[in-house]
Amino acid sequence: MENHPSGRVISNGKIGFSTPNCTHERDDEEPEIRVHPQIPEWFSENSPLWPGQAHFLKVEKICFQGKSEYQNMLVFQSSTYGKVFVLDGALQLTEKDECAYQEMMTHLPLCSIPSPKKVLLIGGGDGGILREISRHSSVEQIDICEIDTMLIDVYKEFFPDVAVGYKDPRVKLHIIDGTLFLNSVPKGMYDAIIVDAFDPIRPDHELFESEFFELVSKALRPGGVLCIQAESIWFHSLDIEELLTKCRQTFKGSSDYAWTTVPAYPSGVIGFLLCSTEGPFVDFRNPINPIDPENYGISKQPLKFYNSEVHSAAFCLPSFAKRFSNSKAKSTAKWPQC
Amino acid sequence: MENHPSGRVISNGKIGFSTPNCTHERDDEEPEIRVHPQIPEWFSENSPLWPGQAHFLKVEKICFQGKSEYQNMLVFQSSTYGKVFVLDGALQLTEKDECAYQEMMTHLPLCSIPSPKKVLLIGGGDGGILREISRHSSVEQIDICEIDTMLIDVYKEFFPDVAVGYKDPRVKLHIIDGTLFLNSVPKGMYDAIIVDAFDPIRPDHELFESEFFELVSKALRPGGVLCIQAESIWFHSLDIEELLTKCRQTFKGSSDYAWTTVPAYPSGVIGFLLCSTEGPFVDFRNPINPIDPENYGISKQPLKFYNSEVHSAAFCLPSFAKRFSNSKAKSTAKWPQC
Repeated sequence: MENHPSGRVISNGKIGFSTPNCTHERDDEEPEIRVHPQIPEWFSENSPLWPGQAHFLKVEKICFQGKSEYQNMLVFQSSTYGKVFVLDGALQLTEKDECAYQEMMTHLPLCSIPSPKKVLLIGGGDGGILREISRHSSVEQIDICEIDTMLIDVYKEFFPDVAVGYKDPRVKLHIIDGTLFLNSVPKGMYDAIIVDAFDPIRPDHELFESEFFELVSKALRPGGVLCIQAESIWFHSLDIEELLTKCRQTFKGSSDYAWTTVPAYPSGVIGFLLCSTEGPFVDFRNPINPIDPENYGISKQPLKFYNSEVHSAAFCLPSFAKRFSNSKAKSTAKWPQC
Repeated sequence: MENHPSGRVISNGKIGFSTPNCTHERDDEEPEIRVHPQIPEWFSENSPLWPGQAHFLKVEKICFQGKSEYQNMLVFQSSTYGKVFVLDGALQLTEKDECAYQEMMTHLPLCSIPSPKKVLLIGGGDGGILREISRHSSVEQIDICEIDTMLIDVYKEFFPDVAVGYKDPRVKLHIIDGTLFLNSVPKGMYDAIIVDAFDPIRPDHELFESEFFELVSKALRPGGVLCIQAESIWFHSLDIEELLTKCRQTFKGSSDYAWTTVPAYPSGVIGFLLCSTEGPFVDFRNPINPIDPENYGISKQPLKFYNSEVHSAAFCLPSFAKRFSNSKAKSTAKWPQC
């Protein structure tokens, strides 16, 4: 049986043609969109971060394709992950599993400190982290820096249950680069800063050589916390010990590493780097600020993923990832070997 | 640019042709194998258990293809997951992540009971669980029921670090169906039975309507334990509460559900069902029988994945999966909300 390509597929931000199991790229910059009436389409991120594997999702319908001043955007309805958002070819979010990422990214830091009042989100333009921050009644001010207004509009249009976070009256949107914004804020301004703006960071990430972490640290109050996504434990390149050592050069409080399951991401898991500045000690592994289960904030839904046990469990690493067992993280942990 | 298929790809147990992103099946029962010199090959399980997604692995080299009396086997060298074993089109094991599955499947039950002496493994012909059981010095007898001798031979040939488990002198191999074997063993014979022979079970699985669980229960001593793989938390079809309720109809001790990350499996996680018979209480969430880190058993390697913290953390479920929070499992747990 011979196969001839038909249908459309999106891979690495380019448009190509596909059969259910067949993808290849076209060279066209803005190709004509052709959809074969009988052959469904598949999307693959084909992540360069972990070559040799590709996770394909069946595309039921393309909802949106467009290009902003900064990046290419694609929204499609998948057959089993709900709607999916893709930025420059990289899968950002699916309706099926966004709860895991957004809730852990938000509540790991905010449930680790008492009564957070001022929170800064850098990136996270989808609004899901804003939605999660809104569950914290102690919070008085939520600043978000997002440079791409079109991204916000696309999320509001196609992912209303995610972008709902913008409806919280405590939210103030700053259309500005995060670094520029940080340069302008008073020292010690925030209780927590969540960064959802970059590729997953590794020890060789430019963040460690830039002033960015320094700026974040200065913008946090003593004992304030940073949360930023940080690679999968299954990536060979990840050296958690090295990552934490580098963090401690800037953040003089505590630093720790957690992970969670996100099926649509390469390897099915993603990590989080958590750091606190010098000041009141933050024990990330033992949350002290539980979420009121009756308070849905701006969301219409209770928490889907996060709870206090998942919080603590997220810091328990497989033995192969526990290279930092003799580091400072251990000495402050209540978990005997984590 | 037109694409013409070339190279070979394996999908759903059939052989087809591929480009790096292109797969489709041929109808041939035993096809000629053609490999394009410049276009690498990709394998996809394309699991029918979770339609709408497919995880592709790049194939560097086919190591073995064959058919036993019972099933089709394929071994290939992948570019990033090491060697991969496929049975009737279903991915069984990769060298990269087998540690997670084998270690958790073995040590979740064996570390939950004091001094296990007699262990029965049904299935698990690869030998990896035998390798893990061998780390327990208290164990005196390891019986394994595996019907397919060719499967064992293929693992011994291509996965010596997995099949090494057969070298433990405590192992006795029974080439017999597990149900037949269970019918022949004295009542209360085993401290632990590990079942690694079926598709992941769900509440509607035939196991719950068969005599198999009854036989397992009878073969266990009072307070003896069963471990069997049980679906992914991300599968819509999984109702953990229902699963545990059904288990309790047969196993009158404790029943609980744990999960772990296995990147090569659909959704990147797999669950484990743990049950104990009436007798000394088994608290699966708080292991009482830690592994001696100096005792590698028959393995040449220390544990890669399992440790006591990962053990306890495995029982902490996302909120969406915690439908059994008011069940018996909760009332006996030390973890406040797990």
